[in-house]
Amino acid sequence: MSDAAPHRVVIVGSGFGGLFASKALRRAPVHVTLIDRVNHHLFQPLLYQVATGILSEGQIAPATREIFRNYPNMEIVLAEVESIDPVGRMVATTSFGESKTFPYDSLIVAAGVTPSYFGSAEFRERSMPMKSLSDALALREQIYGSFELAELEEDEAKRRALMTFVIVGGGPTGVEMAGQLRELSRRALRRNYRNIDPAKTRVVIAEGGDRLIAEMGERVSHITLHDMSKMGVEVHLNTKVTDLGDGWAELLLPDGTSEKIQSATIVWAAGMRGAPIGEQLAQATGAKLDKGGRVLVEPDCSVPGYPEIFVVGDLMGLGDLPGVAETAIQSGAHAAHVIRRRVKGDDKARDFHYRDLGNLAAISRFKAVAKIGPVSVGGLVGWLLWLVVHITFLTGFKNRVGALARWAVSFVGRGRSERALTGRMRLPS
Amino acid sequence: MSDAAPHRVVIVGSGFGGLFASKALRRAPVHVTLIDRVNHHLFQPLLYQVATGILSEGQIAPATREIFRNYPNMEIVLAEVESIDPVGRMVATTSFGESKTFPYDSLIVAAGVTPSYFGSAEFRERSMPMKSLSDALALREQIYGSFELAELEEDEAKRRALMTFVIVGGGPTGVEMAGQLRELSRRALRRNYRNIDPAKTRVVIAEGGDRLIAEMGERVSHITLHDMSKMGVEVHLNTKVTDLGDGWAELLLPDGTSEKIQSATIVWAAGMRGAPIGEQLAQATGAKLDKGGRVLVEPDCSVPGYPEIFVVGDLMGLGDLPGVAETAIQSGAHAAHVIRRRVKGDDKARDFHYRDLGNLAAISRFKAVAKIGPVSVGGLVGWLLWLVVHITFLTGFKNRVGALARWAVSFVGRGRSERALTGRMRLPS
Repeated sequence: MSDAAPHRVVIVGSGFGGLFASKALRRAPVHVTLIDRVNHHLFQPLLYQVATGILSEGQIAPATREIFRNYPNMEIVLAEVESIDPVGRMVATTSFGESKTFPYDSLIVAAGVTPSYFGSAEFRERSMPMKSLSDALALREQIYGSFELAELEEDEAKRRALMTFVIVGGGPTGVEMAGQLRELSRRALRRNYRNIDPAKTRVVIAEGGDRLIAEMGERVSHITLHDMSKMGVEVHLNTKVTDLGDGWAELLLPDGTSEKIQSATIVWAAGMRGAPIGEQLAQATGAKLDKGGRVLVEPDCSVPGYPEIFVVGDLMGLGDLPGVAETAIQSGAHAAHVIRRRVKGDDKARDFHYRDLGNLAAISRFKAVAKIGPVSVGGLVGWLLWLVVHITFLTGFKNRVGALARWAVSFVGRGRSERALTGRMRLPS
Repeated sequence: MSDAAPHRVVIVGSGFGGLFASKALRRAPVHVTLIDRVNHHLFQPLLYQVATGILSEGQIAPATREIFRNYPNMEIVLAEVESIDPVGRMVATTSFGESKTFPYDSLIVAAGVTPSYFGSAEFRERSMPMKSLSDALALREQIYGSFELAELEEDEAKRRALMTFVIVGGGPTGVEMAGQLRELSRRALRRNYRNIDPAKTRVVIAEGGDRLIAEMGERVSHITLHDMSKMGVEVHLNTKVTDLGDGWAELLLPDGTSEKIQSATIVWAAGMRGAPIGEQLAQATGAKLDKGGRVLVEPDCSVPGYPEIFVVGDLMGLGDLPGVAETAIQSGAHAAHVIRRRVKGDDKARDFHYRDLGNLAAISRFKAVAKIGPVSVGGLVGWLLWLVVHITFLTGFKNRVGALARWAVSFVGRGRSERALTGRMRLPS
């Protein structure tokens, strides 16, 4: 042991931001405490594949401890962060009812975003989010459970409602979910039922804006809209969800008319806002939040007046960066590098510069859209890109091989490996 | 269509008995309705591997509909069987609150067994069963959650209790669970924690009889006891569980003394008894139950006085057959063959003869015990046998390949693929 205690870095969140910040601190002369309320790193871009039964939960959610087992300077803590004290430099947490505080010298807040439900308690209660692993498992149970119920149902209208899925939001998550639901109904469930025809499943996307996956540019939006329509997804653009009830969604269409869709499953894939800890941090530090609840930071990702506190990833408000994994990866690593240099005595300010490596979304098997710099592609070329990128970024060799095998099962074949209902279901009565 | 309506066969239960009965009725001129309250066929011999994070739930639980998608004479119904009316020849069910009855010409009851808890409400409440897929998932959450809690716990006694696992019952399930828990603690969790040493995990088997896996003969019991002890499993034979409390188990040891073990996790791998529907069926038909709640049947597996009702598998009381998958497979197929022949007009009584194909139990990686006829083997030879048999019997090609890959990860490597906690945990306060 050296005579000075090592510099203590606390990282809040084991998503992409926290993961890459931790990796960048490997072998640095610091002690890292990574705190999250879940025990795994979630590979969110493939969450919809867990929801639709292609992948198992472990394949996209390796245990954080296992990822960092060879980082002796790191400790993993399963706890919920309650508040940050920027003056006393402490993070207060609770875990299984016990309170514990963690002092820090540097802090990286990578707590991400949560569904906003546009502030409506009704929307929160009536729809199913797609953000955490348990969200995906609940949705899986809901999807396969709905087909089971439909098979038993004798009332034609109720049966139709069970086979109707409304997705609120036409971003990548909404589009990928819709694509998979149509794949399920057209191919994967073939010959599985005797009383219903899964091919008749109705999948509706309600998007408030005028384009699908707007962040990927006009050409990609155009390709996506075309592909979705061809697959039988009903896309409503410029459409607001005005009300959700028990088994129905009311849409306000662009022509001013309302449509009430009977649907047992309403997936929330729309508005997100910064995690609540961002608000608390802003209050305590005097930092400002943008209207999405993101903490506005300095060009080096630090909180104004608190150079030792960094906010990275989706919770970070900095310019007009897209809310994607790549932003979190790069900003997390950036904050860690600033800390590494400081510990070595190099205090020079270094601004964060985002490098746009492109963006991808899967449409169906063998079809995806991609935007890399000025180039937009779709179809099989897009899908091959999608395949290579997702395999590369999946954490851990065994998860890569496992995912490839499952994709062979589901895309070359037509099966879905994870269809077991285990009582996580929340079905309408 | 022929002018006569087809002979209606109702099968209750999608375990091994129901599965192999259904398969034996493929292309028979009958209509088959397979009813179960779960949507999957559970490969129970590998349930402990789901509980310990080696396999995903889908790998041992393929959707029943998918297995039988190419059986046009079959219908799968997700419902709970409430009662059987042997006079009116009807099976009454409920599903999601709706009642439905299914008339039959022939009935195969393959409803299996449930944990008996020796009739104690206390035992039921304080221990965790290992029978269904949701049991295994709850246990997985409990096991990995306990290590998380132990890592956070500062009280030494509480920490020890979190790292102590008491398994009630030294049959195959208890032994395989104990072996895996020691594997976890000795190898899989290595370097994962900073405050605890998982190698210090205490695993206790409390077995009422004088041997482990008694059904496999004395030599196998001897090998198993030796291997378990060598792995650091504490085996108490001739030991009764006298009381279970919140976080402790009281054992009555053979020398007459009591030991109270502080343990956050108590696994119920002991007494099973016939599913409740067996009792109802016995009351309605006048059949007798044995003391394990099994329905005593005629030599052809039918219920006395009701040649059209068969009871097969674990729920069947016939001679001294072992409660293993093979008994269910053979008796299920036997009942189906009797029905096939009857439909063709061949009414000759055919007794069921069990062919003992041997029995296996895994001890640790590369070690298993096997008994095939008079031959008992252990060690690597036993394990290779275990490997071949389990791969052969796993349902579906993709599950075979998937399980092999996971075993390479866990046994050649040291990882566990499914460690994500998703809120199914039930932990002591």
